[in-house]
Amino acid sequence: MSQNLSFDVDLPLAFNDAVGRVKEALKQEGFGILTEIDLRAAFHEKLGREFRPYAILGACNPPLANQAVSADPAVGLLLPCNVTVESVGEQRTMVRLTNPEALLATAVGTSPALAGVARDASERMTRVASTLTQTSGGL
Amino acid sequence: MSQNLSFDVDLPLAFNDAVGRVKEALKQEGFGILTEIDLRAAFHEKLGREFRPYAILGACNPPLANQAVSADPAVGLLLPCNVTVESVGEQRTMVRLTNPEALLATAVGTSPALAGVARDASERMTRVASTLTQTSGGL
Repeated sequence: MSQNLSFDVDLPLAFNDAVGRVKEALKQEGFGILTEIDLRAAFHEKLGREFRPYAILGACNPPLANQAVSADPAVGLLLPCNVTVESVGEQRTMVRLTNPEALLATAVGTSPALAGVARDASERMTRVASTLTQTSGGL
Repeated sequence: MSQNLSFDVDLPLAFNDAVGRVKEALKQEGFGILTEIDLRAAFHEKLGREFRPYAILGACNPPLANQAVSADPAVGLLLPCNVTVESVGEQRTMVRLTNPEALLATAVGTSPALAGVARDASERMTRVASTLTQTSGGL
C-alpha cells in the first residue's frame, strides 16, 4: 500500500480498547462513524473462515462530505473515509487512517473545488493520528 | 472523476426502483450489501440541509474480500466496494459502480497477489453494469 494513502499508528492496546480510542479521537475532529464492519464476523458468517479481529470504520465529517459531494457527486465513491483497526497481537493493534487528500489525488486528480476540502480532511486525520500516537507514547 | 474509476449507468428509473435493481444485479455477481448510507438523511439530520436522494451502497463479495485482505491487510481501506445511486430526475438515476481494478491500481499500485482478485472483482462489476444497461435499453 502506498505510504501516503494512510496514516498508520501501531497502538499498544488490545483490539476493543483501540476501537474505542480511535472513535474518540475521530470524534474530536468532527468525524462520526456512519458504518462499522466487523470483518472477522463477516468472514465467519459468510465463509466459515477464521480471521483476526479487524474493523472497518466509515468515518464522516458531515460538513466536509457535503461540500465534497456537492462539488463532485462522484466523490461519493470514496466516502465515507475508512479507518481500519486490525489486531496484530494481544496488546497491539494497527490503525490505518485514510489520507483523504492522497486518495482523492490518486483517484480523482486535483480539482480546485475539492482541493480545500480534501486538505482540511487530511489535516484532521493527521491530528487524529497524532492524538493516537501520543496515546502510544504515554503507555 | 477519472473515467476509469467507475462504471456509470444512467438508469431510466425512479430512485427507489433503481436502488432495488442495483442490489439485485450486484447479488447476481455475489456482492452482498454490507453497509448502506442514506446521504440525504445524513445531511438533513446532521446539517439541516436538503440534498437529493443519494445512497452509498457498500458492496462486498466475501471470498474476494477475504483473498484481498489476506494478501494485504491495508486493502481494508478500500473496502467495501462502493456503489453510488443518485437521483438526477424523477425517472432518472445515475449509478456509479467502483472499478476495483482501477482503484487498487491507482491507490496501491500493482501487486501480483492482488491483481487477480482485483481483475475478478472488476469483471463482475462490468457485468453488473451490463445488466443495468440492458435494463435501461429495455424500457
